[in-house]
Amino acid sequence: MSGAEVKHSCGLFGVFGHPSAAVLTQLGLFAQQHRGQESAGMCTTAGGDAPVQRHARVGLVNEVFNKRTLEELANPIAIGHVRYSTTGSCTDTNAQPLLFNYAGGQVAIAHNGNLINAARLRRDYEQHGHIFLTTSDTEIITHLLAKPSHMAKANPLPHVLSHLQGAYSLVLLLNGKMIAIRDPGGFRPLCLGRLDTGAWVVASETCALDIVDAEYVRDVLPGEIVTIDDSGMKSEFFAEPPGGRASQCVFEHVYFADPASNIFGQNVHIVRTQMGRQLAREAPAEGDIVISVPNCARCAAIGYSHESGITLERGFTTNHYAGRSFIMPEQHMRDMAVKIKLNVIKEVVRGQRVIVVEDSVVRGTTTRGKMGALRDAGATEIHLRVASPPIRHGCYYGIDFPDRKKLVAHTRSVDDIRDYLEVDSLSYLSLEGMLSCVKGGADHFCAACFTGEYPVPIEDTFSKFEMERHQVKMFD
Amino acid sequence: MSGAEVKHSCGLFGVFGHPSAAVLTQLGLFAQQHRGQESAGMCTTAGGDAPVQRHARVGLVNEVFNKRTLEELANPIAIGHVRYSTTGSCTDTNAQPLLFNYAGGQVAIAHNGNLINAARLRRDYEQHGHIFLTTSDTEIITHLLAKPSHMAKANPLPHVLSHLQGAYSLVLLLNGKMIAIRDPGGFRPLCLGRLDTGAWVVASETCALDIVDAEYVRDVLPGEIVTIDDSGMKSEFFAEPPGGRASQCVFEHVYFADPASNIFGQNVHIVRTQMGRQLAREAPAEGDIVISVPNCARCAAIGYSHESGITLERGFTTNHYAGRSFIMPEQHMRDMAVKIKLNVIKEVVRGQRVIVVEDSVVRGTTTRGKMGALRDAGATEIHLRVASPPIRHGCYYGIDFPDRKKLVAHTRSVDDIRDYLEVDSLSYLSLEGMLSCVKGGADHFCAACFTGEYPVPIEDTFSKFEMERHQVKMFD
Amino acid sequence: MSGAEVKHSCGLFGVFGHPSAAVLTQLGLFAQQHRGQESAGMCTTAGGDAPVQRHARVGLVNEVFNKRTLEELANPIAIGHVRYSTTGSCTDTNAQPLLFNYAGGQVAIAHNGNLINAARLRRDYEQHGHIFLTTSDTEIITHLLAKPSHMAKANPLPHVLSHLQGAYSLVLLLNGKMIAIRDPGGFRPLCLGRLDTGAWVVASETCALDIVDAEYVRDVLPGEIVTIDDSGMKSEFFAEPPGGRASQCVFEHVYFADPASNIFGQNVHIVRTQMGRQLAREAPAEGDIVISVPNCARCAAIGYSHESGITLERGFTTNHYAGRSFIMPEQHMRDMAVKIKLNVIKEVVRGQRVIVVEDSVVRGTTTRGKMGALRDAGATEIHLRVASPPIRHGCYYGIDFPDRKKLVAHTRSVDDIRDYLEVDSLSYLSLEGMLSCVKGGADHFCAACFTGEYPVPIEDTFSKFEMERHQVKMFD
Amino acid sequence: MSGAEVKHSCGLFGVFGHPSAAVLTQLGLFAQQHRGQESAGMCTTAGGDAPVQRHARVGLVNEVFNKRTLEELANPIAIGHVRYSTTGSCTDTNAQPLLFNYAGGQVAIAHNGNLINAARLRRDYEQHGHIFLTTSDTEIITHLLAKPSHMAKANPLPHVLSHLQGAYSLVLLLNGKMIAIRDPGGFRPLCLGRLDTGAWVVASETCALDIVDAEYVRDVLPGEIVTIDDSGMKSEFFAEPPGGRASQCVFEHVYFADPASNIFGQNVHIVRTQMGRQLAREAPAEGDIVISVPNCARCAAIGYSHESGITLERGFTTNHYAGRSFIMPEQHMRDMAVKIKLNVIKEVVRGQRVIVVEDSVVRGTTTRGKMGALRDAGATEIHLRVASPPIRHGCYYGIDFPDRKKLVAHTRSVDDIRDYLEVDSLSYLSLEGMLSCVKGGADHFCAACFTGEYPVPIEDTFSKFEMERHQVKMFD
Repeated sequence: MSGAEVKHSCGLFGVFGHPSAAVLTQLGLFAQQHRGQESAGMCTTAGGDAPVQRHARVGLVNEVFNKRTLEELANPIAIGHVRYSTTGSCTDTNAQPLLFNYAGGQVAIAHNGNLINAARLRRDYEQHGHIFLTTSDTEIITHLLAKPSHMAKANPLPHVLSHLQGAYSLVLLLNGKMIAIRDPGGFRPLCLGRLDTGAWVVASETCALDIVDAEYVRDVLPGEIVTIDDSGMKSEFFAEPPGGRASQCVFEHVYFADPASNIFGQNVHIVRTQMGRQLAREAPAEGDIVISVPNCARCAAIGYSHESGITLERGFTTNHYAGRSFIMPEQHMRDMAVKIKLNVIKEVVRGQRVIVVEDSVVRGTTTRGKMGALRDAGATEIHLRVASPPIRHGCYYGIDFPDRKKLVAHTRSVDDIRDYLEVDSLSYLSLEGMLSCVKGGADHFCAACFTGEYPVPIEDTFSKFEMERHQVKMFD
Repeated sequence: MSGAEVKHSCGLFGVFGHPSAAVLTQLGLFAQQHRGQESAGMCTTAGGDAPVQRHARVGLVNEVFNKRTLEELANPIAIGHVRYSTTGSCTDTNAQPLLFNYAGGQVAIAHNGNLINAARLRRDYEQHGHIFLTTSDTEIITHLLAKPSHMAKANPLPHVLSHLQGAYSLVLLLNGKMIAIRDPGGFRPLCLGRLDTGAWVVASETCALDIVDAEYVRDVLPGEIVTIDDSGMKSEFFAEPPGGRASQCVFEHVYFADPASNIFGQNVHIVRTQMGRQLAREAPAEGDIVISVPNCARCAAIGYSHESGITLERGFTTNHYAGRSFIMPEQHMRDMAVKIKLNVIKEVVRGQRVIVVEDSVVRGTTTRGKMGALRDAGATEIHLRVASPPIRHGCYYGIDFPDRKKLVAHTRSVDDIRDYLEVDSLSYLSLEGMLSCVKGGADHFCAACFTGEYPVPIEDTFSKFEMERHQVKMFD
Repeated sequence: MSGAEVKHSCGLFGVFGHPSAAVLTQLGLFAQQHRGQESAGMCTTAGGDAPVQRHARVGLVNEVFNKRTLEELANPIAIGHVRYSTTGSCTDTNAQPLLFNYAGGQVAIAHNGNLINAARLRRDYEQHGHIFLTTSDTEIITHLLAKPSHMAKANPLPHVLSHLQGAYSLVLLLNGKMIAIRDPGGFRPLCLGRLDTGAWVVASETCALDIVDAEYVRDVLPGEIVTIDDSGMKSEFFAEPPGGRASQCVFEHVYFADPASNIFGQNVHIVRTQMGRQLAREAPAEGDIVISVPNCARCAAIGYSHESGITLERGFTTNHYAGRSFIMPEQHMRDMAVKIKLNVIKEVVRGQRVIVVEDSVVRGTTTRGKMGALRDAGATEIHLRVASPPIRHGCYYGIDFPDRKKLVAHTRSVDDIRDYLEVDSLSYLSLEGMLSCVKGGADHFCAACFTGEYPVPIEDTFSKFEMERHQVKMFD
Repeated sequence: MSGAEVKHSCGLFGVFGHPSAAVLTQLGLFAQQHRGQESAGMCTTAGGDAPVQRHARVGLVNEVFNKRTLEELANPIAIGHVRYSTTGSCTDTNAQPLLFNYAGGQVAIAHNGNLINAARLRRDYEQHGHIFLTTSDTEIITHLLAKPSHMAKANPLPHVLSHLQGAYSLVLLLNGKMIAIRDPGGFRPLCLGRLDTGAWVVASETCALDIVDAEYVRDVLPGEIVTIDDSGMKSEFFAEPPGGRASQCVFEHVYFADPASNIFGQNVHIVRTQMGRQLAREAPAEGDIVISVPNCARCAAIGYSHESGITLERGFTTNHYAGRSFIMPEQHMRDMAVKIKLNVIKEVVRGQRVIVVEDSVVRGTTTRGKMGALRDAGATEIHLRVASPPIRHGCYYGIDFPDRKKLVAHTRSVDDIRDYLEVDSLSYLSLEGMLSCVKGGADHFCAACFTGEYPVPIEDTFSKFEMERHQVKMFD
């Protein structure tokens, strides 16, 4: 699948107690740039009552931060955030971490996930005279935190969180502390690490721990609040998984997370390889070579090749310099721009029966283009094998799939999709097959984008797309 | 006086009903760049329920806006804002116009002035669970607007404004309308203009009308709300001037406003020339030539020369390319950088008894340096004449003087100041002399920075400097 | 006159023997930014055989240099150059100083002026197989320097210079030395200064000495070569002024040089004031006020007012933030952009008979616009007085006037020009009057742009405009 | 091998006769960005006598060109160039294509390769009074072209080229024609393609044809001059391969060229796969998995795995956002920056006997670091297999290896290298094995970096490193 087809929510990172916390956070965000390319941001503080510095803008990590901004952010406590990519927006307003002032002081908050009752809560608060800066669901958390009845509690956070429904991995700066939270279902990953200096680190994925030489300690668990301050780390649980079943996002394993990361207790590459093996067992194909579509499906292709015994080959090259800012002034030449990222090695596929392994198919348009390129290069047969089931439903927990109607599998049968993609055969991995590869299986994972069975019920009128696009009419 | 010594609040501009409103607003802000160099911003809308676009960042007008941002802001209704300069801040958060969502939709607000009861109001709201994004006094207005009891009114704005104390010229986008407001004392200027297309324009100063070829219609009056929508312009008054006395800022005439502008019913250049004449009458000097310190005091020097009959000369040149971003990597060379802006014409002042006219003196450090440069160039006598009284008090209505203790006249007598500045004689314009030059005199103008008599009482614990600098402890 | 109407060649600056030579050169160029806004450049060296570092690009001084480039240029010997502005060119190639390698090592060269025999010399060299990088006349000097018969001489420079005809103030880096040269006629200014550290400085104008706190030592004289190396300063003369008459450019005094500078033995402001006085004697006018067109004509207006006894007033304001990069996306709004730089103070001119003093008129289009603005503001009479004679001829010695046909005075009588500019009366300063104000008068100054009498004969086929614009056909 | 270890000369691209030639050239350069990351440049012309536009600067392709520069370069004929990366240089001077004026008009030249007699030729020309802009060997070609005796010939180019020794693939704009040339040995690749509009394209590699949808026509042959003008394509041969043996660079196949490209008559990926197979035959290893070092060695690893039957796995991930501009302000944190590009998938290598396939080893420092990372991740044995022989000699034909003394194999035996890299076993592919994989073998390829047998003799005093670094002393 192409990275442009699905936009992921976010990546989180935080450091407590290191003189270079801002630079480390820049690195940790950079290692998680694949989780969000729209904006990057950081909030840092010296702790105690010291004010919180914030810098957050539209752009990639190394565009948003430079030597000057990092110097201004130099503080021993830092949290950061990367956010997914949208086009046509010139606003920095929605970039996270959000930073607000309230009666308790300042609160900075970085959020990965999606709150499905945010719209309703927001409407309630607005009816009581509250104002909102962003169109983001995250902001409601700060209003809950500032609520006098919550502030009056000795330990307000569990009360605040009890109002939230949906997916939320959070990192906060509050009263000089760094706080990491994972929702009761544990939709999104979040883990703890430690530097050899003793400083604590929190990250969405372990690949961000690797880049700063932090040792992995453990995952933040579903329903857990981890508080880190000068006296060390403290844990408390505010909720049980609903029905005793976690709802970790299987799509993180299928597509999003970095292959080098361990999430939800397993290495991503290993899981993908197992999905590829399972796919080979479920959907064998007669072919001469197995290739993958760059870059995400390489792991599954290795598994398919190993299980099937069919030779693994390299069918495409990628241009490492392809970025967002390529200039294509003339409209009629834009088509060429798609080739900028991907080129077929014609000599590999010419005259071959090619088994192509994909991790997933969303809209299908990009996949269709790639299949056409293989055919143009002389492949005699194309057998597409997808290492996950058809995506037929939207996600309300933090993955920004396009509108349901644009999903190629929304109303099409597999045969119809095969015809649309113009391939000789097409098979998807079964739901059971996919879930057999992840630890805990159906009891620990959300697969709603494949099944439509939403572990946290969706409110009838909710639409995150409306929320993003029609700000004024948001709650009408 | 040097522009770096005093920082002014802001400049406002707005256009209703022109296809190029965003470009016109860019021009209108540019013409008022002297009112604020820290940040620039704009909010635009297509009217009705259409969402409001916002772009606001740290930087000068032509740094903040470019072709792409102006295209994204292309809408027939626009309001904009320029804000004064601070250093060391990397945040765009405080840039205006502010844009918030509330139960009534969206509100964009641009503010020139200072609300002296903002801190107290904010503390109250925070105690009721409200959160605040900025450290600006302006934000409280949006909370008042969102208050359910206010929203329930048929005409909420007068109720909202009745809570505000201090100085506020405001331009708002609200429910597809552009609204211009001036506080009951009328501290800051605000005027209405009209393009030949019929589109309405609002601006802090008339020089901004000139740049877009708008015809001046009239001032927004103290205590007036002007509402502009598709059906035209509507006026209402929400308050009388307290005690029947307006409190227009005399310092706008002394220093801030552009000489080509008409504010408070008079042309700024003419007023300054009259102050120079009055100064010549009050404080004659025996000298060979009259010169001014660039650039602001030129008008007063013309008046002084005309009244005294002493030859007007040019003593300094200025570098038109001097900007903020000059690179001076080596610490010990920074002193040279002050010469970048100003150079003495030695042949003019050498061997002369020089009468130097200044508009005002704040800290005195820059003035002292300029007097030294004149002496180094061979002036035999220096007689400094200041076309306003000594500044001995802070301003709480929108002019950001430095801390009182840094005012050269705070504890010094005129003789002491003369010694400090190392000039042969020093005279200030009298308070009465100054007020005799402005229409309405003491009954229509605030001169608190000279007199300490504040027309709107200052709350005891208030300090705007704390508000800016210590965000968390703001209300302790 | 508007700065955009005439483009000046260049400004030169150099420092020998100071650890911060590059930063000082940046300052010295900045102080001379008025002499050229197209490009800026610098060459620096550690002396001896050390290689020369170069950085030169299209842009203003503070755009071309930043902290990184200044660090890379850090060397004790530096020369720099600013060059006039052209539009539509994306090339850095013509930016100076030029740096070339030849059998003698490296030579860096910065040039102010114009060589009228460069095209012929170049054609000759090309016929002998030489290649040329730039379209600049300057490059020929390096070919002459590299000529084996010249290199064989004990002292090659006088031989090289004997081939050049026209105007050239030069600063070179050669064999670890800094060399300053002025042509036998002395068309362009060039002076020597000294820092209190003992380091030598060379500059086009003394205002650049002021900015770095250098003491003015003396002018480089017409026909002189000044060589500065570790052993100090050495002077030699390579030519006498032709016919014993120097040909210093009177237009430097009329328009180009900074008022604070001393050039050709006189202060520029004083000379301009005297021209204004002479103009008042030659061409009195009945008026209520004297105003000047910003910014250059202020000096002459002071003189006119003093001599005539008519009140000096301020008729225009200028926007200090107006730069080159203002965004005006819509074609039909570009007219507004002209108002960005200049605004009339209507209250000053309304109902007045206004005497407007200009320093010079070139095309007349901008002047016409300004006169119209005065009339629109309500001036009852406009009497334009120009403090120099009509410009009727091109300059081949370094001032880039537009094509002769575009000069308003090229074929028009003064009456015709008066009608074109739509003013009530128009007078120019006489040639004799102008020359009576400069030291040495006609015997020491070139006034060819006014008289057509060229002190160095122009070759028949030469056209510098072709040279710039039609590179390939340059010598056909 | 890491891309940072070896710097390649250049990539060439040209288009003749297409309205969007500049945009196509930008694309073609972008597809060849792997051949040079220091600078990018383009020269374009309308043909005939029309002037040539040039834009060339330090930076990546999409940094150097933007919408404005592409508009200024809009012309139907274009040639472009990318150049390798150096650090610490702020000069644009050496960026190609070079553009010079000479008696014949203008010549633009882009060069891939290295002329080994350039220093001697240059010294000769300098002795005859010629000046040189750059420190590049390419510039001498323009001097040869401008030589009157050459210009007098009906067909000067063969005469010019007869003076050159070494490696040169060239693309020129000359007299409105586009000319492609390859030296008699054919060191560097160069090919012809055609768009469906009929426009001709020239490129270093066929992957650049793919990106613009050009059809591959044929290679430019060793010793051939291909001239393209309005009348079509014309070929002539100016020299035979010396001794009938071509000297195509085998290292292009080993490392540099893009796997999707066909060069020297073979697909690069296929050649590399064959080298991997041959390596498996020559140097089998007992291991559990085969992995490659990203990204270049993937092809060879596929071959090794196929031939050996040992499972191919993925041992590393790469960060697609890693660029040159990452900010690492603190010295002691720079080590972390190396992890930015590469991360080990620990779960893959832990407990495994790992066979690591590399394409080549230059300095060995980066390879050593990667082997250490594998060991830290828990690999029990590491068997390094390198798909080319030890590099023991410098290249004088266009590949910028580091100084010989820095080559890990310069004085070390394979056993010593194994100990240095701290691997359990190490084998290189044999010279014969490598050459058996390329068409024509030893008779058609230069392998001097492996053998020290230079097909074109190196002049005794020559050192390209001196040429780059010590400009003044270049020829002493």
